[in-house]
Amino acid sequence: MKNILLNISFNGSFFHGWQIQPNAVTVQQTLCDAIKNLTNESVNLIGCSRTDSGVHANSFVCNFKTESTIPPEKFADALNCELPDTVVVKESFEVPESFHARYDCKGKRYVYRILNTKTKSPFFNGLVFHYPYEIDVEKLDRASKDFVGTHDFTAFCAAGSDVADKVRTIRSFQVFRRGDEVVFSVEGDGFLYNMVRIMVGTLLDIGRGKIDQNSIKKIISEKSRDNAGVTVPGEGLYLDEVFYDGVF
Amino acid sequence: MKNILLNISFNGSFFHGWQIQPNAVTVQQTLCDAIKNLTNESVNLIGCSRTDSGVHANSFVCNFKTESTIPPEKFADALNCELPDTVVVKESFEVPESFHARYDCKGKRYVYRILNTKTKSPFFNGLVFHYPYEIDVEKLDRASKDFVGTHDFTAFCAAGSDVADKVRTIRSFQVFRRGDEVVFSVEGDGFLYNMVRIMVGTLLDIGRGKIDQNSIKKIISEKSRDNAGVTVPGEGLYLDEVFYDGVF
Repeated sequence: MKNILLNISFNGSFFHGWQIQPNAVTVQQTLCDAIKNLTNESVNLIGCSRTDSGVHANSFVCNFKTESTIPPEKFADALNCELPDTVVVKESFEVPESFHARYDCKGKRYVYRILNTKTKSPFFNGLVFHYPYEIDVEKLDRASKDFVGTHDFTAFCAAGSDVADKVRTIRSFQVFRRGDEVVFSVEGDGFLYNMVRIMVGTLLDIGRGKIDQNSIKKIISEKSRDNAGVTVPGEGLYLDEVFYDGVF
Repeated sequence: MKNILLNISFNGSFFHGWQIQPNAVTVQQTLCDAIKNLTNESVNLIGCSRTDSGVHANSFVCNFKTESTIPPEKFADALNCELPDTVVVKESFEVPESFHARYDCKGKRYVYRILNTKTKSPFFNGLVFHYPYEIDVEKLDRASKDFVGTHDFTAFCAAGSDVADKVRTIRSFQVFRRGDEVVFSVEGDGFLYNMVRIMVGTLLDIGRGKIDQNSIKKIISEKSRDNAGVTVPGEGLYLDEVFYDGVF
């Protein structure tokens, strides 16, 4: 029995998120079907996290156990032959039997992509959030540093989440311009439901003067979702990298 | 009667090229339908060139005459409300009555985008040509300069083209790396059928040693399509800019 790690990338526009659910096309289901076609095994595929409908991944890690004799590093090419163009296995390799993509995850980086042009682009439908207004990137980058640290992020969690412990550590936050885009890059040990999308929405509200640029620490401390900004659409969000001790 | 110029961008993956044809979705038809919805006029929409199925445009110029009282510069936003996400009007303005998008065109720049990564990307389906092999960009850029000048490009024209005069002037050719992509950028007064795609294919054949790097001038002079390289797929090709005297 081998434990195989897959590092995948997927275009979330075509999926109702990662997790298997009835009557919806999900990444987990699509991958399980491909593994079944290849090995004839119905595996338990463990993902590093759930993702929402429409959210993308530049890098998403999952693992499964198999009796297959396919060399571990060959799973990538073999699965890509079975998969639609909207999911790509970037690499595959064997990991220790105890490795668990979710429990062993030590952190993640998300990026949020805004297309900051006057008109939409016909090439980025579902892949960026189009925001045609001027963005003071330096101001947003400065404000974003107030998210860094270990805080109770209740104010930045979608209402209705049933997670008890809302303390998370944000290791870094950057806002920068890349061509026609404004990119938000945030790394942390873990994220609450909609947390990145609410943090980005709050920064945009700071940009247009709806929220004061020095108020993020106060919003965090008051722990009320009502004080934070809007939740920006999922289409701009990418899980960019997942961190493990000693695996990558 | 006003003559309106539209500068548009479109994702060719969703169209059977520019030109109206029966039983196929084309950019020209889609735009004419949108103009009809807006003005109730069936206009004669003149495009700067034909484009093949699957070929994209960052910038494509067309013009039409209208009795509409809509301010010329407002056509862009008004048409974007009528158009699918796959065509965007970037700007609109009034031009002299004599302006003709095709006859007055003084040159064009095309870019060809190759995604040069080991695995495909789920985000660029139909938008780039995936080529996973190593590319010696400097070698290709050097060789590309032999296209520059005024030549009979019969060897770089798809068989079956009925154009009599195959002399064209290439003003510049560059090959460069941009992130994970290798970009071919070529500017000229005009292009024959499939000319850019055959030039790029020839450069790739030079890259893998199938065609000698110093043979482009000879291939041009011998005027046989058989001596040039493969025709690369349309999905990587973009009309990037169209040039006019004194309009832009």
